[in-house]
Amino acid sequence: MTKISIPFILINFKTYAEATGKRAVELARKVEKVNLEADICMGVAPQFADIAPVANTVSIPVFAQHIDPVMPGNSTGHVLAESIRENGAAGTLINHSERRLKLADIDAVVTRAKETGLVSVVCTNNPSVSASAAALNPNMLAIEPPELIGTGISVSKAKPEVVTSTVKLVRNINKKVTILCGAGITVGEDVAAALRLGTEGVLVASGIVKAKHPDKVLLEFAKAVTKV
Amino acid sequence: MTKISIPFILINFKTYAEATGKRAVELARKVEKVNLEADICMGVAPQFADIAPVANTVSIPVFAQHIDPVMPGNSTGHVLAESIRENGAAGTLINHSERRLKLADIDAVVTRAKETGLVSVVCTNNPSVSASAAALNPNMLAIEPPELIGTGISVSKAKPEVVTSTVKLVRNINKKVTILCGAGITVGEDVAAALRLGTEGVLVASGIVKAKHPDKVLLEFAKAVTKV
Amino acid sequence: MTKISIPFILINFKTYAEATGKRAVELARKVEKVNLEADICMGVAPQFADIAPVANTVSIPVFAQHIDPVMPGNSTGHVLAESIRENGAAGTLINHSERRLKLADIDAVVTRAKETGLVSVVCTNNPSVSASAAALNPNMLAIEPPELIGTGISVSKAKPEVVTSTVKLVRNINKKVTILCGAGITVGEDVAAALRLGTEGVLVASGIVKAKHPDKVLLEFAKAVTKV
Amino acid sequence: MTKISIPFILINFKTYAEATGKRAVELARKVEKVNLEADICMGVAPQFADIAPVANTVSIPVFAQHIDPVMPGNSTGHVLAESIRENGAAGTLINHSERRLKLADIDAVVTRAKETGLVSVVCTNNPSVSASAAALNPNMLAIEPPELIGTGISVSKAKPEVVTSTVKLVRNINKKVTILCGAGITVGEDVAAALRLGTEGVLVASGIVKAKHPDKVLLEFAKAVTKV
Repeated sequence: MTKISIPFILINFKTYAEATGKRAVELARKVEKVNLEADICMGVAPQFADIAPVANTVSIPVFAQHIDPVMPGNSTGHVLAESIRENGAAGTLINHSERRLKLADIDAVVTRAKETGLVSVVCTNNPSVSASAAALNPNMLAIEPPELIGTGISVSKAKPEVVTSTVKLVRNINKKVTILCGAGITVGEDVAAALRLGTEGVLVASGIVKAKHPDKVLLEFAKAVTKV
Repeated sequence: MTKISIPFILINFKTYAEATGKRAVELARKVEKVNLEADICMGVAPQFADIAPVANTVSIPVFAQHIDPVMPGNSTGHVLAESIRENGAAGTLINHSERRLKLADIDAVVTRAKETGLVSVVCTNNPSVSASAAALNPNMLAIEPPELIGTGISVSKAKPEVVTSTVKLVRNINKKVTILCGAGITVGEDVAAALRLGTEGVLVASGIVKAKHPDKVLLEFAKAVTKV
Repeated sequence: MTKISIPFILINFKTYAEATGKRAVELARKVEKVNLEADICMGVAPQFADIAPVANTVSIPVFAQHIDPVMPGNSTGHVLAESIRENGAAGTLINHSERRLKLADIDAVVTRAKETGLVSVVCTNNPSVSASAAALNPNMLAIEPPELIGTGISVSKAKPEVVTSTVKLVRNINKKVTILCGAGITVGEDVAAALRLGTEGVLVASGIVKAKHPDKVLLEFAKAVTKV
Repeated sequence: MTKISIPFILINFKTYAEATGKRAVELARKVEKVNLEADICMGVAPQFADIAPVANTVSIPVFAQHIDPVMPGNSTGHVLAESIRENGAAGTLINHSERRLKLADIDAVVTRAKETGLVSVVCTNNPSVSASAAALNPNMLAIEPPELIGTGISVSKAKPEVVTSTVKLVRNINKKVTILCGAGITVGEDVAAALRLGTEGVLVASGIVKAKHPDKVLLEFAKAVTKV
């Protein structure tokens, strides 16, 4: 399994035009460059079809945005863990707020990730759901209050109690899982605040992908991390 | 838009281990080789993450197995038409029996395919659903009775009346759509029978992917087509 | 099968508090009273659990808001056609924009409605989807542009071309299906405009349920119908 | 909130013809009769449309088979907690294997049940999912390995380790939740075995509904409970 160290910054490319096809590869290159300068672990989560081109170009960890609870066999139009693994993915987001899964399927998908050597990052929307997901023993959790996603208002500053409450409930159940937070992460201080609240990294999307200078914002993130 | 001529043989790789990652590329190469020998139009539909490696290797048309009704933007874990197009796909399956869509989403996805220059192949399960899908003006329909998928019992021989009834109902509504049939296609005679019943090609999966010698079976298919 | 005459006004109670439990029964009584005065066919579509109390109280046609494509058997938490029929429903909405179904399931549900003597009303979002649904031969279609639902801006006045285009495309495929329209229907003139555009009735929700005096608004609807 | 004592036997009517409409009311009457004789707490879960007729007839607790994570408002075709409550339901099944929900929706539905005074029974498929659901603090859990549902092979005898492992994992996280088990419960000894393994009752469907003499089987269940 690809080594991922904490603090960890994971950048979700979503289906943004700025991070599709060739532009996904270019953006991943920028992330890799900042990663080399700043020595903070950074990963990217491009679209399924962009995983191979991105993973063939950069050496930072590449994540899928979703995998399906299917085994090799007759499942048309589904995302097989083995397929993204073989094309270079190191891990996968699971249950993102834009791709919610059934509880039994999250459990099955976490298992599929383990079987295929993928790092599993289960996204959650509030403290109780985070605790619930922690009981499934994924590698990481990413708490993101859906109402803040894409707003530029960061969870770590606007709703610090959501983050601290999540950390507390999760740690009662699971000592090992890495806890990230996300939603509205835009400036370095958002990242620093997240770490001070007890998380071990951030999941960010528009804050980087839609930035005029993604590399500058990322470098700011990295510097903020170093100071915590 | 990639030129696709009829009769057309489209091979769905599903999530079969025999058609995942490197093995997807190898199988696509075999299909391309038979295509050059036999001069019958043949396409392959690998998994999303395998589209780029396959399309970078072969010159036959590559299809996605599914796309989502989303625009570029904030849709995590979805399949954006632009993404698969830019990675080399020429078309996409839509509404396969293993990935059924809501009616309004099929309509939206057919429109998305048009907007991005992808050939749309809407899968259907019976004559009335085929007529219904024909009203949405996709490029192609593929009628596949779900109970025969993967059985090795071909629709063209076991349920010829399903095929002829589909052709009749569809033609009342849509003169232009290309009609394929699928489910249980295993030997050349299944393909020949499909064409004699009024279809213009076949959608096949396990019959090729799981065959001991996929190239021999495909060549048999091509010869059967030539004789019709 | 319960006789439903056109023009037909169908009132969707949704999950509105104003139309839940006892208040569903009271509202249905008001509709029945106006129906007796105005002699225009009117139906109500309460929530599943309210069907029996409503149908036991009033003699106007009662519709379910949805049924599932299941047969009697082991399907927990689904809506069986036989169950709502036996509790007094005369018909059912299918594929409402707040409860979209897969294409194959709409087909299956229209068949289930036929088998159990329920009037099927398939909701659609645009002209091409309406044509597609018409090919499945339901008893009625209800075209509702989702962007106008609940706005108070009526489709018949704001987007008359959507209605006329729907009527034209549908009639090319299906001469018999009754065509309703909905979304934003608020005043009598909206209903009159709908009929003049070629539809045979309306599907209305908030315009009646949320009205201060639902009976007055309904009576206004009925008078507008009479004048067309 | 309706008082439910343990041990508790909950009978899921599913969409069985033998438990639909009038036959749902008759079966509920039989359950009530055994309940009075045997003094073991018993509940029934009929279909949505049958809740009112059943709850108006019997005094035992009536459950819905599912509720949706919706508030009063514009949600067509969904099951509003308030609606089933007002029609006499005391509780609801959640996430049955035939009606699986997204994790965030299970959380929302458990909250909706609390808000409306309904007893929540979350169904789960294995020990880890049971632990996960326990973190959401429902009133009850019902562990049912899906592969045994409807088989007549009881989980308590065929897979006792699944039950004991569930009890152990759940109790680490939640001391208060009532634990039921289900799947294949057919004879009194299945119920007794379930209780001896640490559960506090059973969820049963075909074992009662499809029995030639449901009342005799239920009485046998009750006697087995008394002896544990």
